[in-house]
Amino acid sequence: MAIERGKIRWNGWGWSAHRDALAGREEVWSWLAQEVGMPSLLATPARRLEDIELPKPLLAPDARARLTAVVGEENVRDDAYERAFHALGRSYHDLLRLRAGDLSQAPDAVIYPRATEEVLVLLSLAAERDIAVVPYGGGTSVVGGVSANRGPFASLLTIDLSLMESMIDIDPPSRLATAQAGIYGPALENALEAKGLTLGHFPQSFEFSTLGGWIAHRGAGQGSSGYGRAHDWLAGAKLATPRGLLDTQRFPGSSAGPDLLSLVLGSEGVFGVVTEAALRLHAAPAASDYRGYLFRDFASGAAAIRMAVQDGAPATMLRLSDGEETRFYRTFSRVGQRDGLKARLEQAYLDARGIGPDACALIAGFEGEKSVVAAASSYFTQIARRLGAVPLGRGQGKRWLAGRFHGPYLRDPMMDRGLGVDTLETATSWSKLDALYAAVRSALDTAMRETAPRPGAHGIVLCHISHSYSDGASLYFTYIFPRALGGEIDQWRAIKNAASEAIVANGGTISHHHGVGEDHLPWIAQEKGRLGIDMLRAVKAALDPKGILNPGKLVP
Amino acid sequence: MAIERGKIRWNGWGWSAHRDALAGREEVWSWLAQEVGMPSLLATPARRLEDIELPKPLLAPDARARLTAVVGEENVRDDAYERAFHALGRSYHDLLRLRAGDLSQAPDAVIYPRATEEVLVLLSLAAERDIAVVPYGGGTSVVGGVSANRGPFASLLTIDLSLMESMIDIDPPSRLATAQAGIYGPALENALEAKGLTLGHFPQSFEFSTLGGWIAHRGAGQGSSGYGRAHDWLAGAKLATPRGLLDTQRFPGSSAGPDLLSLVLGSEGVFGVVTEAALRLHAAPAASDYRGYLFRDFASGAAAIRMAVQDGAPATMLRLSDGEETRFYRTFSRVGQRDGLKARLEQAYLDARGIGPDACALIAGFEGEKSVVAAASSYFTQIARRLGAVPLGRGQGKRWLAGRFHGPYLRDPMMDRGLGVDTLETATSWSKLDALYAAVRSALDTAMRETAPRPGAHGIVLCHISHSYSDGASLYFTYIFPRALGGEIDQWRAIKNAASEAIVANGGTISHHHGVGEDHLPWIAQEKGRLGIDMLRAVKAALDPKGILNPGKLVP
Repeated sequence: MAIERGKIRWNGWGWSAHRDALAGREEVWSWLAQEVGMPSLLATPARRLEDIELPKPLLAPDARARLTAVVGEENVRDDAYERAFHALGRSYHDLLRLRAGDLSQAPDAVIYPRATEEVLVLLSLAAERDIAVVPYGGGTSVVGGVSANRGPFASLLTIDLSLMESMIDIDPPSRLATAQAGIYGPALENALEAKGLTLGHFPQSFEFSTLGGWIAHRGAGQGSSGYGRAHDWLAGAKLATPRGLLDTQRFPGSSAGPDLLSLVLGSEGVFGVVTEAALRLHAAPAASDYRGYLFRDFASGAAAIRMAVQDGAPATMLRLSDGEETRFYRTFSRVGQRDGLKARLEQAYLDARGIGPDACALIAGFEGEKSVVAAASSYFTQIARRLGAVPLGRGQGKRWLAGRFHGPYLRDPMMDRGLGVDTLETATSWSKLDALYAAVRSALDTAMRETAPRPGAHGIVLCHISHSYSDGASLYFTYIFPRALGGEIDQWRAIKNAASEAIVANGGTISHHHGVGEDHLPWIAQEKGRLGIDMLRAVKAALDPKGILNPGKLVP
Repeated sequence: MAIERGKIRWNGWGWSAHRDALAGREEVWSWLAQEVGMPSLLATPARRLEDIELPKPLLAPDARARLTAVVGEENVRDDAYERAFHALGRSYHDLLRLRAGDLSQAPDAVIYPRATEEVLVLLSLAAERDIAVVPYGGGTSVVGGVSANRGPFASLLTIDLSLMESMIDIDPPSRLATAQAGIYGPALENALEAKGLTLGHFPQSFEFSTLGGWIAHRGAGQGSSGYGRAHDWLAGAKLATPRGLLDTQRFPGSSAGPDLLSLVLGSEGVFGVVTEAALRLHAAPAASDYRGYLFRDFASGAAAIRMAVQDGAPATMLRLSDGEETRFYRTFSRVGQRDGLKARLEQAYLDARGIGPDACALIAGFEGEKSVVAAASSYFTQIARRLGAVPLGRGQGKRWLAGRFHGPYLRDPMMDRGLGVDTLETATSWSKLDALYAAVRSALDTAMRETAPRPGAHGIVLCHISHSYSDGASLYFTYIFPRALGGEIDQWRAIKNAASEAIVANGGTISHHHGVGEDHLPWIAQEKGRLGIDMLRAVKAALDPKGILNPGKLVP
């Protein structure tokens, strides 16, 4: 497969060899301790896999023999690394358990099929033998989407799609491609780049997530303003189910009844396994221009985004940090540095322009034809200036691009130091955005204070507008807090519950691009309604009558 | 209600008072006779309603009393005009039967609810009493979408939504509006125009169709390149079902499981009755520029459209007639006129530019901000010139706009003269478009020859690209043929079958924007697949367990 799984962390983010940018920087840790109201941070290292005992694999020998007959001995794996790697996803909640050595949920075996036909046979076999099945792409879910949850079944297989990584067909005149669902982001983009094309789907997990995963959780990449969400670019899919294959046809537009592809999108492995997908492509961009701006406050930055998207300005990305996120990252990047003359002059200039302590940083990205990029960028700069913002030029944009996939790497060293780090996201209409923002921020802040390990300790709430639409935008929250050691799962749940209740009460969706999984299950019925859940259950029963697929996710 | 139904034809298109543009123009009829290889055309007038006996209404008196208790005496109608008006839609197949006086399918009563709550009570009552229900908006379906088909039930009610025509809310900052589903196109656009907004959904049926109908059949307006299809602009909906209300929430983007709105879109009244909808809006365009172009052939015109949409040029509409459609309408508009000097000079100019007998007319429309419209229009003109086309200026565009909703009015006088006129449409990817075009054209031509009333008689096949996308386009066929009097239904079915088989065999969708209804039912299983049909059936069973809703449509 394109990625050597042995080189990826089984209990953290990304490449094992990735350099820890915070190693030895004690000044950063002292500053972080202050930021969360703690006198100091404790060392809380993760347990090593060698020291953890896994539950015995519970697969009957004859069932194992039949699996081997389908995919070959080498593609049925039950060694400790494979089982640990596939036990959970990569959410904060998952990492808490993995780092503590809780592998009680490890799958009994991990199967690597190579073709849709093999997946169909595997599902039929699993249904016959009452074995739960978790479909698995890159495994980067941050909402419990790939937890090896057995539900009512005695044993569980993970079907890992990562050997199904072929580009099947590229149709340049129609700007369509068909690929197997296990292909990783970089391999997919490399194959398209060779034809002068791009999908343009760049989630933060891009390097470690797969096409099938993007579809199954109905995701959105960082550049979705320009390239669309999975909802926009998915043209067709093959879904292998215990009752056979659903092969949705691919038409540019159709009114022939409800769009079944919309039931594949976001189905999170509970209806079937996405094995192939047809994708709408774009020309590889001839030009790319990412720039920074500093707005006086969140409201004026949000207004600039709203004006741009409602005018149809062709931006690829418009990302606005709130005042706290702006302050946090500016301070973070300067910890231990003395303010030189240059920094003081910069600050004086910003002061003169009315950019004070509530300053909000915005990164705007434009990709496409050179003339379109130039026009769009200068159009957005006009809007920004009219709203009192200061353009910061391309340096900020370049820095953002260079680190666009690296954010999650910061979580592991923080978790080594007694800190918790989690994220959540939501979306609502422009007219409800302010109230939603205030409510979630306040709920997170209160819950982190209430669950802090000592009086006066608290968390940090950072937020940015990550994706925008003519009718509204998404809010992406990152929150960092001192862990209540020994009660960390309860602490996580209390904070998550508080934020989720605030989201639902204020007209936000329980997830804009992470999905439902296990973590958002308690709120899905409120979002979809009683009849909506009945519809999802009816579809599940039609495709997976025994309910073996991904128990405990999406459908309550 | 906004439209006086008594002023609309019950057995034809539109306003009864609409002037027949062909009245007394015998030179046109002689020419049309020649075009279809007939010596002359016969008079085939429609039967008058007064001369037709309707079946007795079969509603039990106590059931009628309960309906009256819900909506009031004045909103339960069973007079002949109401029952005839609601017996069928407005397809050629429907008109054949209505004109012949076949009202065997008239509903037993037509009910006019005023609120979602009333619809819920009506559906619950109908389910309890085993009465079939046809949801009805404007009734302009051309695929048998509103036929009063009882299925296995003894009696049938039509629920006419046209009293539910209120604009409920407009949220300008979010560019969202919420309206009752029975609102007609003009009333909807007038209410939005007052706030400087537009939905921009202008199907040919705009004047006589409703918001709920556009959603139920998942339609596309003429300007969908700029304003999107129902699939794009629908933000939320209330669907009243026999099991209660589905109220999909409205988020700008969400990954919280499959999008249930996609099951409302295109549900054609078999899952429930759309009673309210939330819509994504656009700023009312400050400028509008519609222009004509003449391309040398269909391939170069299609290439121009493909380049424009793939480059993201902001066109509202790009509509390319094939050579036959171009020739037909040019000749039609000049029948009986002598070629003056101006016409001959024009032709000489076109000859010199290489525009010969295969010439294809294209209408391009651009709406929006003045500067964007100017740039987009000149950009498209550049593409067209590069491909050898001759720009014809705004006159052609103005003429097209003036008649954009009038095409269907020509069908009635043609049906008075022994002619049949039908349309169908499909869509496929750019790489399959040529083969699909050739196959459908050939299938229609052959079937019309084989079913012609006399040897040597034949039909005319006109085609245009009506909607375009980065991955493909739709083909809209109009076909005119001499009727096989006495065997007209069989003739219609033979032609329809031939074209539909060609569509399915060549990778086209069975409908791009008309829907499924009764007419496309035989092909829906091929398009959706066995499991796809199972999914639709499962959803129907969850919402309408007795199957009372719109029998015989969409779900085989």
